[in-house]
Amino acid sequence: MSRASTPVIDPVELTRDLIRIPSVTPADEGAMDVLERHLTALGFTCRRLAFEGPGGEGVHTRIENLYARRGTASPNLCFAGHTDVVPTGPSEQWSSQPFTAEVRDGVLYGRGAVDMKGGIAAWVAAVSQVLADGEPEGSLSFLITGDEEGPALHGTKRVVEALAAEGEIIDACVVGEPSSSQQLGDMIKVGRRGSLNTWITVHGKQGHVAYPERAANPAPVIARLMARLNDHVLDDGYENFPPSNLEITTIDIGNPATNIIPAEARARLNIRFNPSHTGDALIDWLNREAGAMQAETGLQITLEHLCSGEAFLTEPGAFVAAVQDAVEAVVGRRPEASTTGGTSDARFIRTLCPVLELGLVGQTMHQIDERVPTAELETLTAVYRQVIETVFERL
Amino acid sequence: MSRASTPVIDPVELTRDLIRIPSVTPADEGAMDVLERHLTALGFTCRRLAFEGPGGEGVHTRIENLYARRGTASPNLCFAGHTDVVPTGPSEQWSSQPFTAEVRDGVLYGRGAVDMKGGIAAWVAAVSQVLADGEPEGSLSFLITGDEEGPALHGTKRVVEALAAEGEIIDACVVGEPSSSQQLGDMIKVGRRGSLNTWITVHGKQGHVAYPERAANPAPVIARLMARLNDHVLDDGYENFPPSNLEITTIDIGNPATNIIPAEARARLNIRFNPSHTGDALIDWLNREAGAMQAETGLQITLEHLCSGEAFLTEPGAFVAAVQDAVEAVVGRRPEASTTGGTSDARFIRTLCPVLELGLVGQTMHQIDERVPTAELETLTAVYRQVIETVFERL
Repeated sequence: MSRASTPVIDPVELTRDLIRIPSVTPADEGAMDVLERHLTALGFTCRRLAFEGPGGEGVHTRIENLYARRGTASPNLCFAGHTDVVPTGPSEQWSSQPFTAEVRDGVLYGRGAVDMKGGIAAWVAAVSQVLADGEPEGSLSFLITGDEEGPALHGTKRVVEALAAEGEIIDACVVGEPSSSQQLGDMIKVGRRGSLNTWITVHGKQGHVAYPERAANPAPVIARLMARLNDHVLDDGYENFPPSNLEITTIDIGNPATNIIPAEARARLNIRFNPSHTGDALIDWLNREAGAMQAETGLQITLEHLCSGEAFLTEPGAFVAAVQDAVEAVVGRRPEASTTGGTSDARFIRTLCPVLELGLVGQTMHQIDERVPTAELETLTAVYRQVIETVFERL
Repeated sequence: MSRASTPVIDPVELTRDLIRIPSVTPADEGAMDVLERHLTALGFTCRRLAFEGPGGEGVHTRIENLYARRGTASPNLCFAGHTDVVPTGPSEQWSSQPFTAEVRDGVLYGRGAVDMKGGIAAWVAAVSQVLADGEPEGSLSFLITGDEEGPALHGTKRVVEALAAEGEIIDACVVGEPSSSQQLGDMIKVGRRGSLNTWITVHGKQGHVAYPERAANPAPVIARLMARLNDHVLDDGYENFPPSNLEITTIDIGNPATNIIPAEARARLNIRFNPSHTGDALIDWLNREAGAMQAETGLQITLEHLCSGEAFLTEPGAFVAAVQDAVEAVVGRRPEASTTGGTSDARFIRTLCPVLELGLVGQTMHQIDERVPTAELETLTAVYRQVIETVFERL
C-alpha cells in the first residue's frame, strides 16, 4: 500500500460528522458505518460483530460493534472507544441543538464531543497522519462498540470474549475516554476500582414487644451483621490504590409502632475495591457472612448483588512510560497515572493486554452544552500520533 | 354514727349513673360530684385535689381528683380508681348509645362499664354494705382521679405526692381496674413491668461512597450501637417477672442512592423492665452507652426517652393472701397473682403501700359495646365486701 493511497483525515470534521448522527445508546443510526468507511479507506480490514440479547431493563437489544485491523505485524496497538452517547437532556437548554455540531468561537458543541466521538476522530486522524508518513512497524486496530453508556452487556465485553476465543493478540490498548482533568494530557487512567452493590434482607417474625418470645426481631440481626461486615478489613491497599472500602448506604425497617417488633429489616452496602479482589470473591464473602449470621440467629437472610465493574490496574512498564513520554513530548507536561474515577470498558480489555485511558478534558461530558475547543481536538490528534509512533518504537 | 344512718347503695344503679356522665378523658363533666355526694352520705370526709398544667400534646388541662377518708383508725384500706373513660369510637357502631347505660338481657352496655365505673360503683356499694353491718375496725379511703386514660400527669401521681408530703398513711390499696381475665376473680395483678421508649439519632456527614474520607457514615455507628445495646443482659429476671427485655423496634436511614453515604441514621427501642430497674437508671445507662459510642466514633448521638411506667411488684404477704382468700371465699376460685399486662396507676401508689389490682373481666374494655353483666357487678360487690372484711380482720 503506497503512501499516496491513504487520505489524511481532519479530526474536527470527522468529529462533527459523528456528532450529527444521533446515536443515543443503544441506537447506532449509522455511526458505525461512517467509521467503517473511513477505516476501510485507510486500509483496515473491518469486521462487524453484532451481539444481541436482553439489554437495559430486559428489553431485547442488538448492538453494533466493530473490530478493525490494519496489518499483521506485531505489536498490535489497539484503540478502543464507543460511538454511543448519553441522552441530551432537555435540548432547549442547549445553546445550539445537540446534534448539529455547531462551531462557535473555536468551540465545537454537541453530544459526544468529548465522550467520545472527538477521541475516536482524533485517533483516526492520527492514524491517517502516521500512514501518510509511511508503513508503521506493527499493526493498528480499533475496537469500537455501540454499548458503553448503557448496560454494556453486548459491547466490548462480548467483543473481547470473541477475540480471546479466536486467539487474536492485542499487545497494548488506548481507550479514548476523556481522561484529562483540567488540561489536555494532565492525566491518564491506568486503573479503576471495582464497585459492588449488595441488598440484604433479614426476614423475622412480627409481634408485640411485650411478648418477644412469640416474635423474631430482625433489627438486632441486621445491626450485628452490618457491624460485622463494616468492621472487616478488606485489605491494606494495593499498589496505586487506597484500601478497598465498604460503606453501608442504608438500613431501613420503617416501623412506626413503638410496641411492635418488625417483620423485616433491609440494608444496602457498596464496596469500592482494588485489584486484590474480584466482584465474585466479594459476593462469596458476603454470602458466607450472611450464612453464618443466619445459622447463629435462625433468621433467614437473603442477598442480591450487582457488580457494576471489576477493578483493574495496568502496572507501570514500557507501555505506560511510552504513553507518558509521548504526551509530555507534545503538550509539555507529564500525565499523572491515576486510578480515580468511575468505570470504563478498560475493565473488559484488561484481560487481553495492558490498557490505559487517554483522551480529552472530561469536564463537560454528559452535560448540557457538551463541547470541545477545536484546537484541543488538533492537539489530541498530535498526542495520539506521538503515542502510536512511540509505542511502535519501544514495544 | 349509727347503723341506720348510712344508705345501702345499688352497684348497678350507681354504675349506670356514672356511665351517663360522658367523662371522656380529661373531661370530668360532674362525675366526681356524683361520687362525692355518695361518699359524703356514707360518712366520708371528701377532699378535692385539682391539679393543672400541660396535659396531652402540651394543652393546658385542669384535672379533678378526690381523696375521701372515713375514720382515723388504722389500718387505712384504700380503693383507687378513675372516673375518666377512653373515647367511644364511632358511636353508630354501638348497639346502644355509649352514654345511655342501657341494660339488655342482664347486660349493662356503656363506655366505662368495666373500665372502671363498674369497679368504683361496686366498691362504694360494698362499703355501704359493710357500714350497714357496723363500724369497721379501721379506716376506709378512696383515691379517685379523672386523669388515668390520658397522659396521667395531674392525677394519681400528684395526689400520691401530696398525700406523702402530708404524711397521710395508707396501709394497703386495691385498684379497681378490670384485672380478671376470663371469669371474675381469676386474676389479680400484683405488679407490672415498666416500659421505656428511646429514640436515637446518629448525626454523620453526607458524601459520595467513592470518597469516604470526606464523609462520616452514621450507618455503621448506629448498627454497632444497636448491636451492643441488644447484646447487653439487663438482668436474669426478678421474682414473678421474666428478665427485662430490650427490643429494637426500628432502624431507619431512608437513603435511596446507592452511591451516597447518608447524613443521619435513626433507631428506636423499647425496654420492658422488671423492678430491678427504674426508668431513670435505664435512661442513664443508654445515655452512657451512646456517649461512649460518640467518643469512639466522633459522631454526635442524640437520644430522647419516654418512660411510660415504672415497674412495681407487691411481694406476697398478708395483704395479697387476704385478698386471694376473700376472692376464693366468694367465687370459689383462687385468683392468680399476675404481673402481666399494661400499666395502671398502681405504679404511683406502690410508693405509699402494698397495692394490687382486682376488678371485673376486662375483655370489652376500650372497645365498641363495652359491657358488663349486672350479675358480675353484684358478685364483684360481694367480693369487695369480703376483701374489706378480711383485710380488717388480718392487717
